[in-house]
This record gives sequence, structure tokens and C-alpha cells, in this order.
Amino acid sequence: MMKKNILLFKPIGLIKTPFKTREGMPIQPTGAKGIKGEVEIYPEFADGLKDLDGFSHIILIYHFHLSDGFKLQVKPFMDDKIHGVFSTRAPKRPNSIGFSVVKLNKMVDNILYIENIDVIDGTPLLDIKPFIPEVDGPKTEKLGWLEGKSDKMGHKQSDKRFEK
Amino acid sequence: MMKKNILLFKPIGLIKTPFKTREGMPIQPTGAKGIKGEVEIYPEFADGLKDLDGFSHIILIYHFHLSDGFKLQVKPFMDDKIHGVFSTRAPKRPNSIGFSVVKLNKMVDNILYIENIDVIDGTPLLDIKPFIPEVDGPKTEKLGWLEGKSDKMGHKQSDKRFEK
Repeated sequence: MMKKNILLFKPIGLIKTPFKTREGMPIQPTGAKGIKGEVEIYPEFADGLKDLDGFSHIILIYHFHLSDGFKLQVKPFMDDKIHGVFSTRAPKRPNSIGFSVVKLNKMVDNILYIENIDVIDGTPLLDIKPFIPEVDGPKTEKLGWLEGKSDKMGHKQSDKRFEK
Repeated sequence: MMKKNILLFKPIGLIKTPFKTREGMPIQPTGAKGIKGEVEIYPEFADGLKDLDGFSHIILIYHFHLSDGFKLQVKPFMDDKIHGVFSTRAPKRPNSIGFSVVKLNKMVDNILYIENIDVIDGTPLLDIKPFIPEVDGPKTEKLGWLEGKSDKMGHKQSDKRFEK
């Protein structure tokens, strides 16, 4: 039965950042403005990087590897109310998949030099895609519970809320 | 060894669209402008949807379930040159994970009524996140091999190139 299907994925590389613990980490890339990191792609996947350095921004899809289990309703860093996990970016999700758009400054062989990165050091990478504003950056009309809060995300930092 | 770690994910729902075969499918959400679909979240995850309907746009992360195996270099629909798979949105990727930003028109219980959807009917859903323009929609400077092509994506349709 499709619903019960288990899908298997394997990291294609690692994300290296200055954030060694979750405390004090930016909670979103806006809070990570200027923070530099590196993505190391495992050599067996390096051929897949051809022409990626033509793009100024890339999408990283990764595994929230420190998240154990999940909660369907959470109180996010940005609010004091309970919300469904799918209306938040909290890491304890049924599938602990994370997503960030970062700036790509340089690519040397299988190493990507990135900026505006908000994940913990050693995060396993699952996929990279070019960021294409025409398809990936629509104009929004409603921002739900984040209305009036999202521009302040740069000032919020993570705490131990989502520790194991 | 982290590098060899196998990650297990399980669909949280299904994406229903008018696209029953890959031929004639839009290749990106711009080509799917106005196309309506539904996301059915499995009842056991429905509590995670609370307050999602406050957002006009959501991120869908899903499994390219018809893609079997992968190629590190591909000739994408939009170009006649070979590119690394990570600089394209082609479905045959080392981890066959897809990503689309869609409009959320309505939510009724565990059904999301969405618009601008570009995936095949029956696509297994892995995660939903709110789309937050401040963090997810940066201004780009370079669009690589897609420069001058990305606004034409609405006119391109899929063919059998990435069939099994």
C-alpha cells in the first residue's frame, strides 16, 4: 500500500557551519545573514554539480539529523501560541526534512562556499536545486500567524525548545 | 559512518492533480499557473495542519515516485546542453525529492485545495512548510544556464525524457 511505503534516502554530502550547538543558532536564514558555511559534496556525486556555480542562490534540502521523533503541534520560537507543525519551520516534523535558500559565493571542485546559512554544523545534505525566482519566489497575500513577525526573525535565536 | 547512513521517510499524504501521465505535464509551477489540485493529508497527521490556512503560499516537499535511478548529468527540457543534475530540476536525482511552492486556496479538514501545481497525480507528499518570502524568496543576481529562459518555462512541457 502506497501509504505505508517507506522511502530510503542517503546523504549526498555535509553542510559545515559555525553553529556547533543549537543554542544561539539563527532560526531562519534571515537571522543567518552573512554567516558563511561550506557544503562538501561526496566525490561520487561531484559530477552532478556542473554549471551550478552559474546560479547566485541555491536550495538546500537536508536532514534535521538531531531531531528525534515529532510533535504535530508546537509553540514556535516566533510566537507564544500553539500551531500545527506544518504551519511552522520547527525541526521535529513527521519527516525531518529541512529546506534553506542560500547564496552560492564560489564552487571549487566538490566544495560549495555558501552564505546566509542557518543549520547546525554536520547537517547531512539530501539534495541541491537551483533557486529560480519565477517559480520559487511568488508574491504572497497572507502570512498567517507570522504576519508582522517574519521581518523580525533575524533577531530571534534558537533555544533548547526542540532538543531531543 | 554518517556518509553511509540510510534515512527513512514515510509519506504524510498524497497530491492529486489533473496530470495522469508525464507527457504534456508542465515542467515547473509557472507552467502550471491556474492548475488546481488537492493535497490529502493522512488523518493521523491532520493535527499538524492547524493554522496552515492563514498562509497564501505553501512549500510542498514530495517524492518523485516515478523516477527510478538517477543520472548525474542531464539535458534538461529548457536547454540543449548537458548540465549537472543539481543545477537542474530534473526528477532523476540521487535522492528523488521534489519541491514546489503552490498557492493554498482553501483547507477543509485534512484536504488542501491548491493552485499552480506541477506534479503528477498520486505523488507522495513528504512535508509541508509555510512559504515565507523574507527567508525563502531572495533577490538573485545570476541564473546560470537558465538566464533569459526561466520566464519562458510556462511554455515548455514535459516529454518522455525522464521516463524510467
